[in-house]
Amino acid sequence: MRYAVILAGGSGTRLWPASRKARPKQFIELGGRSLIGAAIDRGAKIADGGVTIVTAESQVAATDGAIAGLANRPRVIAEPAGRNTAAAIGLAAATLLRIDAEATLVVLPADQRISDEAGFERVANIAFEAVEQTGAIGTLGIVPTRAETGFGYLEVAEAKPGVATPVLRFVEKPDQATAEAYVKGGKHLWNAGIFFASAKRLLEELERQLPAVWNGVTEIAAGLASAEAVYPALPSVSIDKGVMEKARNVITVPAAIGWDDVGSWEAFAKLAAEIQPPDARGNVGLGVPPPLSLAGERNFAMSDDDTLIVTYGVSDLVIVKRGNAVFVVPRKDAQQVRDVVEALEQRGLAKYL
Amino acid sequence: MRYAVILAGGSGTRLWPASRKARPKQFIELGGRSLIGAAIDRGAKIADGGVTIVTAESQVAATDGAIAGLANRPRVIAEPAGRNTAAAIGLAAATLLRIDAEATLVVLPADQRISDEAGFERVANIAFEAVEQTGAIGTLGIVPTRAETGFGYLEVAEAKPGVATPVLRFVEKPDQATAEAYVKGGKHLWNAGIFFASAKRLLEELERQLPAVWNGVTEIAAGLASAEAVYPALPSVSIDKGVMEKARNVITVPAAIGWDDVGSWEAFAKLAAEIQPPDARGNVGLGVPPPLSLAGERNFAMSDDDTLIVTYGVSDLVIVKRGNAVFVVPRKDAQQVRDVVEALEQRGLAKYL
Repeated sequence: MRYAVILAGGSGTRLWPASRKARPKQFIELGGRSLIGAAIDRGAKIADGGVTIVTAESQVAATDGAIAGLANRPRVIAEPAGRNTAAAIGLAAATLLRIDAEATLVVLPADQRISDEAGFERVANIAFEAVEQTGAIGTLGIVPTRAETGFGYLEVAEAKPGVATPVLRFVEKPDQATAEAYVKGGKHLWNAGIFFASAKRLLEELERQLPAVWNGVTEIAAGLASAEAVYPALPSVSIDKGVMEKARNVITVPAAIGWDDVGSWEAFAKLAAEIQPPDARGNVGLGVPPPLSLAGERNFAMSDDDTLIVTYGVSDLVIVKRGNAVFVVPRKDAQQVRDVVEALEQRGLAKYL
Repeated sequence: MRYAVILAGGSGTRLWPASRKARPKQFIELGGRSLIGAAIDRGAKIADGGVTIVTAESQVAATDGAIAGLANRPRVIAEPAGRNTAAAIGLAAATLLRIDAEATLVVLPADQRISDEAGFERVANIAFEAVEQTGAIGTLGIVPTRAETGFGYLEVAEAKPGVATPVLRFVEKPDQATAEAYVKGGKHLWNAGIFFASAKRLLEELERQLPAVWNGVTEIAAGLASAEAVYPALPSVSIDKGVMEKARNVITVPAAIGWDDVGSWEAFAKLAAEIQPPDARGNVGLGVPPPLSLAGERNFAMSDDDTLIVTYGVSDLVIVKRGNAVFVVPRKDAQQVRDVVEALEQRGLAKYL
């Protein structure tokens, strides 16, 4: 059967203050649905074996809240400590392999946005079939829509949407000129972190490439050791670096499905404009009551808790009120939230992160 | 004896969202003390007969909160409806005259800031003595520190701080050029709305100039009619227009005492900088935790309720979080809060006012 594994272990603060250490990006709502909720729906539609969520122990409560009321309740695997994606996927694969020796997995990050969910379903089914028939490891290769320097790329001979093709090379995050060449060249796709493979194949690759991870996760899944004792000591390696880049027979299905990893407030503001039509001056507001931008243009404002945000005479700003924090930043500087996080830590304000 | 009458009937929204309809400007804290709290202290120091607060019935609860715990509890007179300053002062004068036939009053607006309280005490005592000795109506004439077009002015022959001098003329709010000429000329003083007079003299002027007001307030004070029945029907006239401009024998004591009426966020931000030293880039923040301005200059931010405000890469903004509202406006546009209030009313968001 097919199983969806949702990776919900992140603790990013790139969308601070909406994303917090105790409540990271996947819990942010966009269009009335949290990103993790949308990922669960996405997984459930393509996986007859159901959804498994791998998350940090500290986020189990929030995750339980996100899955409460679902007819087919996902399994939740709690990581005692974050050990990166190779260990998380390995633990899920080892667990599911004991349930179903023929399990095929799709791995979905919990904090992404896909605007064309029907399109996703189509390419996901193509990828599932390809890996089931060939024993390959599959990925989705997102057709780039901009010269993005924040993603890794997959190099292919031909990028035809919906047609599985071998991955020639995994490419690290490029510089601006290289990214521009990639977009023009048409042979590079964004690595979305979405993977397809049989549990067996994944574990074989782990055994070969990351034996310590393989050993730990199979012991935990077999009940021979507790996760608390073993998992925190596993090597922290990403699935890309640790497995994919050196795996044989990796394919990708090029996909143009409105994918984004919502990695910055600027990205979030653009997505919000798809859901909440901007006013006549390009201002977008999310919240109840909706934020109000007077005498200004292209602001993005978001509030929670019945708080009204009003701006007058400012333009091109992001203004976010969430819980006990308010953040104001020009859209062009939205990436600088890293500096903000650092400043809060230095000033003893980490409790606001 | 000397009595302080504090006018706390306002419902201004110029400092929205810190000032609300149900909790207007006088309740805003500056330096750990509300403006009305500071006005009560100010009155108590110069008035051996104690302090009387005239306020709207809807604000009695908030006012009681502000005076709770004071050793000498002020009298509170509740207005069933706002009828402007002539009626409010008349009601206080009529009430106090029944307690003390020789009562002399100082009338103090509740929502002003005076940075030199000792200086105020000196000029107030000079004004009290002048009106007690001559039977005049006295005012404080603030030595202008800028070409302000938002205040009325008092014209005098010579403006010597601390020396009582006749008021030649009350002047309406001037245009910019006139205001500049006033500051240079040295014969014009700001009308701060602070008045001194015996209760008897005030009521005689009311009887002569505003007989309907005089009749109403004396009936109420004598218990011949209820405030609810009479007060709302009184003419709504300011003490300046209705009494002062046509009164004989009006004097003023020129005063340089750091007075401001805190009529805008820009004015508030300047005062805040006196209390909370700006950071190296001129940013001022009030709140616990203090607001944090990164990579920006001359911002003023204020928060309540343990909410942290963080800005990055913006300058010259006012950012205020108070209760269920957040307001962002350039300091230069801070006067435009009127447009904001109007917009909120038009959009059915009056509950945020």
